[in-house]
Amino acid sequence: MWEKLVECVPNVSEGRNRESIEAMAEAIRAVPTVRLLDVQSDPDHNRTVFTFVGEPEGVAEAVYRLFAAALPRIDLRVHRGEHPRMGAVDVVPFVPVRGVKMADCVALAKTVGKEIWERFRVPVYLYAEAATRPERQDLAEIRKGEFEGFFEKIKDPRWAPDFGEPVVHPTAGVTAVGAREFLIAFNVNLGTNDLRIAQEIAKAVRFSSGGLRHVKALGMELKERGIVQVSMNLTNFRKTPLPRVLELVRREAQRFGVPVVGTEIVGLIPEEALVQVAEYYLQLERFSLAQVLERRIAEALRG
Amino acid sequence: MWEKLVECVPNVSEGRNRESIEAMAEAIRAVPTVRLLDVQSDPDHNRTVFTFVGEPEGVAEAVYRLFAAALPRIDLRVHRGEHPRMGAVDVVPFVPVRGVKMADCVALAKTVGKEIWERFRVPVYLYAEAATRPERQDLAEIRKGEFEGFFEKIKDPRWAPDFGEPVVHPTAGVTAVGAREFLIAFNVNLGTNDLRIAQEIAKAVRFSSGGLRHVKALGMELKERGIVQVSMNLTNFRKTPLPRVLELVRREAQRFGVPVVGTEIVGLIPEEALVQVAEYYLQLERFSLAQVLERRIAEALRG
Repeated sequence: MWEKLVECVPNVSEGRNRESIEAMAEAIRAVPTVRLLDVQSDPDHNRTVFTFVGEPEGVAEAVYRLFAAALPRIDLRVHRGEHPRMGAVDVVPFVPVRGVKMADCVALAKTVGKEIWERFRVPVYLYAEAATRPERQDLAEIRKGEFEGFFEKIKDPRWAPDFGEPVVHPTAGVTAVGAREFLIAFNVNLGTNDLRIAQEIAKAVRFSSGGLRHVKALGMELKERGIVQVSMNLTNFRKTPLPRVLELVRREAQRFGVPVVGTEIVGLIPEEALVQVAEYYLQLERFSLAQVLERRIAEALRG
Repeated sequence: MWEKLVECVPNVSEGRNRESIEAMAEAIRAVPTVRLLDVQSDPDHNRTVFTFVGEPEGVAEAVYRLFAAALPRIDLRVHRGEHPRMGAVDVVPFVPVRGVKMADCVALAKTVGKEIWERFRVPVYLYAEAATRPERQDLAEIRKGEFEGFFEKIKDPRWAPDFGEPVVHPTAGVTAVGAREFLIAFNVNLGTNDLRIAQEIAKAVRFSSGGLRHVKALGMELKERGIVQVSMNLTNFRKTPLPRVLELVRREAQRFGVPVVGTEIVGLIPEEALVQVAEYYLQLERFSLAQVLERRIAEALRG
């Protein structure tokens, strides 16, 4: 058990009703081959992000149970929140963690997507690494128009769902199911209060305006500290490594004569990304994850 | 089980006789609450280093069984090898790994040291963090004179053993038992073939000649690559962090106009040291080990 591990991070359109949120968390916890790691609710967004890991079959089962718990409790016709959404269960990404490849997560997305349509009559769009068309790689593209707009959008043959008939579920909308790499939330704090500088740097480093392939970035103010921040999502740290992103931000900041005063990793980071940072800055030759003491011990205790 | 983990790295004066080495390894493996991670024998040194981890009580038991296996198989009167030695089981360090503090390892060294004398009549010196006198912190100081010289040395009141009477075991000599931090073997490769430069830098950064507190360093040639290396042992990475050591080496190398062309970590490195590297170079604010994905998952799977 636990030899194959997939992470799943479903986003659900309910961030206020504690009872509903707990019922959905309980549905996930009920699957014995799954562990719920985190539940983050945002009342302004009216949205909850569940993070769980488990064996692929268990993860699939937990998604179905989450749908069964969410559908009677969420009615998108009356849902309001700051975050765009198109489904009661808005998006379901699968992330390879241990003993599984991206291709396995793509296959899992397809199995689960098909089943969601068959069991719950919610049309499914495959996205990110599981996308069947280039314009479906970007979740924001799929979600454009949101729940309210989808009753028209779904009739456009270009936006026919990957699974299901082109009929929006009356209260649960449509769902995006996909596979992606682990996402690292990485912020760089700058020694200035000039928001435009953070915005300029964000524009320079992010993919959408010509920057690094797997970087999303925004300039933000940290009002209480009187500084600004480049707030980033690194969507594929294997291909666009964190240290290279930081060094590019640092370089751009130098053009404005502004120092990097600190950085932060929000939430979790895979050990492999930390090793990448060490390899980069230490100029390590021939280092392997098998040299991490805790890994060696964990293997020995399992063996 | 496995909530408290101590690493133990005994060095034994036998590196040639495969049967003897295997018998000692088997003695360690026989303890159910211990896992043998590594066995490194050096025929030139005529010495074997065993690395194992386990619960503190299990680790103590494995040390007694190692003595029971080693004493009938090793006779220091006929032992020859390049590495200095004073005991059949020459040195027994305990290293805190998980759920135990240095103070626990010091206590363990005392318990085990006392028992070694009582069961095997081998006098014991406490060293490193367990040392009872400043001059016993450094293992090399204790070992001076080696097995052959100890019959005189032990009569000097300054060198009275911490456990046992001042009588050298006729075939097994004396043993050093201690507690220390995890040792990181870290080498920095320089873009020159001038050995003196590596030696000068080693001298600048090591404790013994005025450098950083927990650094041992030597200049070496890497003949096959036509370059030189500063070869280091970092004996307490918490107090003298690896990235600070590298940056000091880099600075000194700059004085000679020589670049760092690469580095290597030999053997294992604790995850905490990798996090330290990331914190240093990324300028991370408020990062914690609990943010490492694999840790969070391991906790969830245990819980």
